Amino acid sequence: MKIIIANPNSSTQCTDAIMASAAGSNTAPDTELIALTNPKGTPAIDCTFSDYQSAWSLHRAVLDAVEEHRPDAVVIAGFGNLGVFGLKEALSIPTLGMSETAMAVASTLGHRFTVLTTLLQYVPAMEDLVTLYGMQTKCASVRAIDLCVTDCVGQREQTLDLLEQEAMNILEQDGAEVIILGSGGLSGYSEDLEKRIGMTVLDPVRVTVKFAEMLVEAGISHSKKRKFAAPPQPLDQYMD
Amino acid sequence: MKIIIANPNSSTQCTDAIMASAAGSNTAPDTELIALTNPKGTPAIDCTFSDYQSAWSLHRAVLDAVEEHRPDAVVIAGFGNLGVFGLKEALSIPTLGMSETAMAVASTLGHRFTVLTTLLQYVPAMEDLVTLYGMQTKCASVRAIDLCVTDCVGQREQTLDLLEQEAMNILEQDGAEVIILGSGGLSGYSEDLEKRIGMTVLDPVRVTVKFAEMLVEAGISHSKKRKFAAPPQPLDQYMD
Amino acid sequence: MKIIIANPNSSTQCTDAIMASAAGSNTAPDTELIALTNPKGTPAIDCTFSDYQSAWSLHRAVLDAVEEHRPDAVVIAGFGNLGVFGLKEALSIPTLGMSETAMAVASTLGHRFTVLTTLLQYVPAMEDLVTLYGMQTKCASVRAIDLCVTDCVGQREQTLDLLEQEAMNILEQDGAEVIILGSGGLSGYSEDLEKRIGMTVLDPVRVTVKFAEMLVEAGISHSKKRKFAAPPQPLDQYMD
Amino acid sequence: MKIIIANPNSSTQCTDAIMASAAGSNTAPDTELIALTNPKGTPAIDCTFSDYQSAWSLHRAVLDAVEEHRPDAVVIAGFGNLGVFGLKEALSIPTLGMSETAMAVASTLGHRFTVLTTLLQYVPAMEDLVTLYGMQTKCASVRAIDLCVTDCVGQREQTLDLLEQEAMNILEQDGAEVIILGSGGLSGYSEDLEKRIGMTVLDPVRVTVKFAEMLVEAGISHSKKRKFAAPPQPLDQYMD
Amino acid sequence: MKIIIANPNSSTQCTDAIMASAAGSNTAPDTELIALTNPKGTPAIDCTFSDYQSAWSLHRAVLDAVEEHRPDAVVIAGFGNLGVFGLKEALSIPTLGMSETAMAVASTLGHRFTVLTTLLQYVPAMEDLVTLYGMQTKCASVRAIDLCVTDCVGQREQTLDLLEQEAMNILEQDGAEVIILGSGGLSGYSEDLEKRIGMTVLDPVRVTVKFAEMLVEAGISHSKKRKFAAPPQPLDQYMD
Amino acid sequence: MKIIIANPNSSTQCTDAIMASAAGSNTAPDTELIALTNPKGTPAIDCTFSDYQSAWSLHRAVLDAVEEHRPDAVVIAGFGNLGVFGLKEALSIPTLGMSETAMAVASTLGHRFTVLTTLLQYVPAMEDLVTLYGMQTKCASVRAIDLCVTDCVGQREQTLDLLEQEAMNILEQDGAEVIILGSGGLSGYSEDLEKRIGMTVLDPVRVTVKFAEMLVEAGISHSKKRKFAAPPQPLDQYMD
Repeated sequence: MKIIIANPNSSTQCTDAIMASAAGSNTAPDTELIALTNPKGTPAIDCTFSDYQSAWSLHRAVLDAVEEHRPDAVVIAGFGNLGVFGLKEALSIPTLGMSETAMAVASTLGHRFTVLTTLLQYVPAMEDLVTLYGMQTKCASVRAIDLCVTDCVGQREQTLDLLEQEAMNILEQDGAEVIILGSGGLSGYSEDLEKRIGMTVLDPVRVTVKFAEMLVEAGISHSKKRKFAAPPQPLDQYMD
Repeated sequence: MKIIIANPNSSTQCTDAIMASAAGSNTAPDTELIALTNPKGTPAIDCTFSDYQSAWSLHRAVLDAVEEHRPDAVVIAGFGNLGVFGLKEALSIPTLGMSETAMAVASTLGHRFTVLTTLLQYVPAMEDLVTLYGMQTKCASVRAIDLCVTDCVGQREQTLDLLEQEAMNILEQDGAEVIILGSGGLSGYSEDLEKRIGMTVLDPVRVTVKFAEMLVEAGISHSKKRKFAAPPQPLDQYMD
Repeated sequence: MKIIIANPNSSTQCTDAIMASAAGSNTAPDTELIALTNPKGTPAIDCTFSDYQSAWSLHRAVLDAVEEHRPDAVVIAGFGNLGVFGLKEALSIPTLGMSETAMAVASTLGHRFTVLTTLLQYVPAMEDLVTLYGMQTKCASVRAIDLCVTDCVGQREQTLDLLEQEAMNILEQDGAEVIILGSGGLSGYSEDLEKRIGMTVLDPVRVTVKFAEMLVEAGISHSKKRKFAAPPQPLDQYMD
Repeated sequence: MKIIIANPNSSTQCTDAIMASAAGSNTAPDTELIALTNPKGTPAIDCTFSDYQSAWSLHRAVLDAVEEHRPDAVVIAGFGNLGVFGLKEALSIPTLGMSETAMAVASTLGHRFTVLTTLLQYVPAMEDLVTLYGMQTKCASVRAIDLCVTDCVGQREQTLDLLEQEAMNILEQDGAEVIILGSGGLSGYSEDLEKRIGMTVLDPVRVTVKFAEMLVEAGISHSKKRKFAAPPQPLDQYMD
Repeated sequence: MKIIIANPNSSTQCTDAIMASAAGSNTAPDTELIALTNPKGTPAIDCTFSDYQSAWSLHRAVLDAVEEHRPDAVVIAGFGNLGVFGLKEALSIPTLGMSETAMAVASTLGHRFTVLTTLLQYVPAMEDLVTLYGMQTKCASVRAIDLCVTDCVGQREQTLDLLEQEAMNILEQDGAEVIILGSGGLSGYSEDLEKRIGMTVLDPVRVTVKFAEMLVEAGISHSKKRKFAAPPQPLDQYMD
Repeated sequence: MKIIIANPNSSTQCTDAIMASAAGSNTAPDTELIALTNPKGTPAIDCTFSDYQSAWSLHRAVLDAVEEHRPDAVVIAGFGNLGVFGLKEALSIPTLGMSETAMAVASTLGHRFTVLTTLLQYVPAMEDLVTLYGMQTKCASVRAIDLCVTDCVGQREQTLDLLEQEAMNILEQDGAEVIILGSGGLSGYSEDLEKRIGMTVLDPVRVTVKFAEMLVEAGISHSKKRKFAAPPQPLDQYMD
């Protein structure tokens, strides 16, 4: 089985971090994970403006890679909107955004989950995602440690302390028992955080890669009726 | 990996049908599926009264089997409430009800899903399940073909025709693109129905077994904080 | 008029406390209250696991008592799920759970109510009840004093202080003006608490007994169409 | 016990019909029902404009009657908004609107209820009431037979046929099992309709009178904190 | 263009304050704003009881003024319910309540808005308005500085300090970025508050006057089908 | 005042139709409307895939035009998502999407509105917009005449007949009284449709242009706190 793991931004360093998380997802021996960077994407995606400036070229890069590699599934490894619904229109193999998938899995693991992200100003956009996926009643809150991605990656101890502190607030004030780390910048923190607080913490890359593998093995994909029906025109008419 | 598949009712014929569905779920070669029938359960579970008359002994049978087999996960293969939340309190390995799991997966496959079940009078209880799992905005409707389980099992052509007819209503009137077959009595119909209508149709046994396998491989289980924390007293104090 | 008051657990001490509350409900002189203990129930019901381990035998005990006493109504005097919907299927006389009834009455007494219970870990299950009864917009919060039932019964002054403290939080932080004492262990506290804080405080046993009496006098019972229709099979087929 | 039953409009014929319904509510022998007509109200209340043109004088008439009769409770016997929340501010004895009370009771009698009213153009206002009382998830629909009140009162057979027809739609299309007759003009139809269709049908006058009696006997009234706190100024400053 | 600006209470001082706000709304040179005081209204509207005691005479005063002035639109300049839906039935020109209009505009200006009002006890009624206008998901909270209207008008510095303090809570705790000043008593504070906190602050009088002008220029009014259809009887039959 | 009206697709014919609608919006004499076509956009936007393929270059074209023309407001004249939230981050002048604005205005004009669009397969994406703008309770339905944009533009009589037919369904089955024409392809139909059916019909271009003018005159813009705060990095870092 082949799964494309697409990093929506242009940072190969970020792609490496994503693939490190994916490598820990314990896929089957014959599952090949193909890394894809979006060279025309923005260096980081930290607002809705950059989400849109990156998604269009991400879609084109994914479609090219699908033609080249003939994969069984595609994982969009960014915790945002990123037009994944548009890509599901264009493809009929399982196509998964990691924000939607992590929330679907988390919905079964506790009463409610919390999305814990980096920047405070990005919280409303995350709340919109929760709404878009119909997860309002399963989501207790969206919280942020308000640290930029660079610091999250560089300052491990400080980041872990901030995550732990917010996790306590999540458990005591918001009543959630499951945490989704809602940013690529928080890759690699799930295990340490889980050890510190004893709650279930999801790394969305890992869980989405496994979910994609599961769908392929089970022979399930998104419905091609209505919402994810193929675009009315041939795809290349939308991409000059 | 070992997964217990527990049929909540007392019918071994039903257990066989469940295991046939499970066998089609394409698990890994080293995944062992252990069938469990609930001898003190009711012959069929077709109302809330029988749900409760069966769940208590199901829980005990599962706990005994967990002690005996030391499995990695438990799947409750009945499309109802069945006190799965209570069993999640008692266990820390992944413990999955097939109604909740199928809805979580379906939530990612289309705009909205419909639960299609057998008896019309059971629809409100299914709607309560949708609410309990927080899936109201993802669920377009709960519908029934209003055929009893015996006829569903015995009258294949008639059942398939009724399913197809309701599937058309679901697509055109309710605006759902994904169907969950919400009854053990509808095991074995998903593939034929999918072929007839071109929509994604989920067999909840299959998808739940695969989901359980995924969680085990990914090292994820339900949170033991709050909702699924261990009962305040030792378990045997609740079971004389 | 005869009303069965069924204690879902096996503690006769608890049955006595319930009947003491019921005695204060100021029923008509000719209303006879028949106490029922559930001998096969768990000693206490403090989690979903025990809810299911108790409900099945509760249902059977109630059905036997109905045959023996021919009552006009049945009150399930436990603040939980307890499969009351299943019992409503089995019976056509008014059959009332005290959690649902207290919430329905509270909905008319203020902008929003709060359920105040004993153990913190039981809060999510109470929130599920609120959802199940469709009372989300009327319920401001579910809170707990986090004291076990034994202490609630034994440590009156401490319990009252904790209740008062939470009541202040409820009024100031949650914006609710009505409190439902959501546990049998809090029987007998409503009047003292109401005096201390000046808010309306409901003892669910009292209000449910009166509600049952009202329905009988008004000739009203639950609808036997759809949700509470009789089970498809004769009752004894579900109880060997 | 004394209960004031206030007809919000100026029609004494309507007051008589209300009192006839109330008489059938099987109150205790010592419960005295005091009829009140609102002489400055509109002849009928069939739109929001007339709701407001009637409510102000209704409130004044009720306050005068309370001073004169010293009742134990007040029932506003009109199926509308009628500013009952304002009257609850002004009074501390149980003060009940029949739309809110009937919905609270109906919430316990089935999966969902339907409000069945007279004029089609009044449906949105009824839907607003459902929302105002927080009963959205318990209310399957608001429907109308689209017959004016005069015809409802005068054309019994036609009215009953229309009600039966809509009741079938309610059961089959909307999935509700309980009907609330949402208009004074439909007083006296509940029993015949219930016989024809086998569903629970509530006459809101009857159920509200009994509910008021229950609250008085149980010593319960609406909370005087926040929403129904006394107006900031003495009452007569609001009434010149 | 002529727009009637109706103050629902009887205070001409309040009418002056409203017209001062309206004057700052930068309407077109040929837009004439006609002030209307409700002489039979209560001196202030600070509870639901006074809302109803004022609305009936407000409606009559407005209808008289419409006949006299033949305006193009009517603005009800009180932040409450005030039966505006009833007045929309009676009129076919644009008829706007300032609470509904301000919320509609605010819905486009940020993720969520907060209504900030004067008295704490009036908060639940404001929350009911939010629900009535279908703005629950756009409204983060309703808050109060708990100062009576007289003090708001007289103690400018204290009021501004309290508003600023609550605005900080709104931004940090409730996650709203837009504030609606929900009381006539807070007229004239929007600009100073906006300067202090850097958030968008709406003066509902100003925004509603501009909105009314916009509708007239665009040739748009409320639909006269269903909800705002003319009352079934001629208007004067409702007003003796 | 200068307002940029940006057509998100690359069709100048479509830009002309938008400007024709805008011209009918009766703006002030000194309001200058500046047309902008998105040359790198797709020829039509009829699915989520094309929404994303067009939005990125639309944003860049708008930012360039803002620098060149220094307008007072920007209107995005496409009925979709189009990343308008991202553009609001980038700009501090009023920036309006016509789907969000039309819904906000429609929310005040009736009990509920319906979005009536062209293609059936685009309905789920429109439903997502309704959710994103928090308008679920104000929106009765999203419906489609299932005619492609080309036919809508070319076949006037057929289109008008289909619109009228759906409008009848909307009024009778969905209970909405206001229609929003949810597609650029339906520009120019609002007046004729309104005449035929007597309901309020909104042309989103017209209403949004007027709304933008209103905000500018009133000195109001979206809040720059949180959701629409400027992106964390300088804008050109997101656009190579």
